[in-house]
Amino acid sequence: MMTREGLLQELQDLNEQEIQTIYKMVQALKRSRVSPLAYIEELMNFRSDGYDEKEGVYVYRMLVTEELKNRYKMLHGGITTTFIDTAMGSTVFQAFGIERRAVTLDLNVHFLAPAQDGWLTARTRVVKSGRTIIVMETKVTDDNGKLIATATGDFFRLA
Amino acid sequence: MMTREGLLQELQDLNEQEIQTIYKMVQALKRSRVSPLAYIEELMNFRSDGYDEKEGVYVYRMLVTEELKNRYKMLHGGITTTFIDTAMGSTVFQAFGIERRAVTLDLNVHFLAPAQDGWLTARTRVVKSGRTIIVMETKVTDDNGKLIATATGDFFRLA
Amino acid sequence: MMTREGLLQELQDLNEQEIQTIYKMVQALKRSRVSPLAYIEELMNFRSDGYDEKEGVYVYRMLVTEELKNRYKMLHGGITTTFIDTAMGSTVFQAFGIERRAVTLDLNVHFLAPAQDGWLTARTRVVKSGRTIIVMETKVTDDNGKLIATATGDFFRLA
Amino acid sequence: MMTREGLLQELQDLNEQEIQTIYKMVQALKRSRVSPLAYIEELMNFRSDGYDEKEGVYVYRMLVTEELKNRYKMLHGGITTTFIDTAMGSTVFQAFGIERRAVTLDLNVHFLAPAQDGWLTARTRVVKSGRTIIVMETKVTDDNGKLIATATGDFFRLA
Repeated sequence: MMTREGLLQELQDLNEQEIQTIYKMVQALKRSRVSPLAYIEELMNFRSDGYDEKEGVYVYRMLVTEELKNRYKMLHGGITTTFIDTAMGSTVFQAFGIERRAVTLDLNVHFLAPAQDGWLTARTRVVKSGRTIIVMETKVTDDNGKLIATATGDFFRLA
Repeated sequence: MMTREGLLQELQDLNEQEIQTIYKMVQALKRSRVSPLAYIEELMNFRSDGYDEKEGVYVYRMLVTEELKNRYKMLHGGITTTFIDTAMGSTVFQAFGIERRAVTLDLNVHFLAPAQDGWLTARTRVVKSGRTIIVMETKVTDDNGKLIATATGDFFRLA
Repeated sequence: MMTREGLLQELQDLNEQEIQTIYKMVQALKRSRVSPLAYIEELMNFRSDGYDEKEGVYVYRMLVTEELKNRYKMLHGGITTTFIDTAMGSTVFQAFGIERRAVTLDLNVHFLAPAQDGWLTARTRVVKSGRTIIVMETKVTDDNGKLIATATGDFFRLA
Repeated sequence: MMTREGLLQELQDLNEQEIQTIYKMVQALKRSRVSPLAYIEELMNFRSDGYDEKEGVYVYRMLVTEELKNRYKMLHGGITTTFIDTAMGSTVFQAFGIERRAVTLDLNVHFLAPAQDGWLTARTRVVKSGRTIIVMETKVTDDNGKLIATATGDFFRLA
């Protein structure tokens, strides 16, 4: 077990950028104390932007930061998928109410362009709302409206 | 910009478990200074276990920890997918050499059972190795051999 | 080898509905002599309805007939997929010109509702048009506008 | 409505190969009178080769014929998918008994190599057998053992 003093020791040789990274992680950790979001979702600065009635889609955002990138300095495809999965899960809550829990059955993601910086937007549409299965599709765009990824997913409603 | 002193201030009211979480993150951050892995992959304790010649699969492992879980205390499906994507990407490196870079075109993941704790294993098989397209499949199991997820993916070789 | 006389013999005990089925097949076979469509596509009465500029989609139709159904008297899911694959392939031709041939890399199809009778419509959108990879999505609806299936597909351009 | 005489008239100008094609279609139609298979499945000469206990897979075969090909004289990808869908549906029957009907929720198919002639083999494995959802994977090979396609599918058990 690491003590508080040990942790402070560990922080001694962090450089400026690493200090900022750890600070963001501490902030996310504190938010997750009271947030319905998971820690990883807080780290992504995941947020809901409500329902776009005109388009019929639920809108979400996340912030691309250094610690979420792959070795090529692009957003890690796994994090893009985490964004999509979280957007779909949140849509189930918003569209069908919090008393029904649903789990992801499967996801199919096409990665169309790399994401480098700034905020991403996910727009999620309910394609089918069955008694047991909910089918959704999500499109992820960057700040310039460029399409980053498109995905479909099946969610399973627990009784 | 947060200063080192500001960060230390922020750490004052972390509880025991949060101290451990931040410590793990600092460790992962330090490893990522010299590691070919992305930070998020270090956070997952991603590692390669070599090629299983008998089965014809490349083997990888990751550790399920609290900060990688969703609100239901199961491994976040997005992190499972990050594990799979990283395993497939590493397989391209191991199977075809580091001079060829490849990017994920698409992933299709079926989530079969929740993962709760301990090490997960990913076994990745190259299904097709074309000049441009590499098709792989990955199966993720937990410590008890239970199948957690199965996935297929297309990777695109950059020239 | 069956002779013409042998075939006529075989037709003796067909009932009324079977006569109609074979007649449709003969018609499709004759159309396929001069058609750029495959025989199976002629059997489905596949046709292009042009480009819907307002929606940005290419529109196609097919006719659900008895011989294309499964044992439950619904359109066979494999035929729905044949419709989708043909619509995507035709879209490549229309959008990028006939000098470029493209082959299907993968298809992901969600079956949302059974199709029973009448004409189906497929609307295909080009989601990404890369130098090598074309990503499309197709939605299939029935005469009442009910969503039957939704699909995404990757096509690979041959040089 | 076409009469028997009208049909015979229509057959007058068929060439040798077309006569053979129509003959195969009449045969398939007659088999489908008593067969649990759909007409399109009979046209593919779909058949079950039983359970391979050693590999843990259900084995099926189909015959590639001219009328199932696309305009490039390769097996139409939609027919490959029809083969896969039928193999998965038959596996549900064999593995779980005929009293439970199941429908295809989604299919994900990777087309790996073109199929030209002869018999194809589909090997289907049950990956997950839930109370409601059955996940399967199917690999299609040709006579030379070359991998033609690999697929995963979710089936939904009707109560």
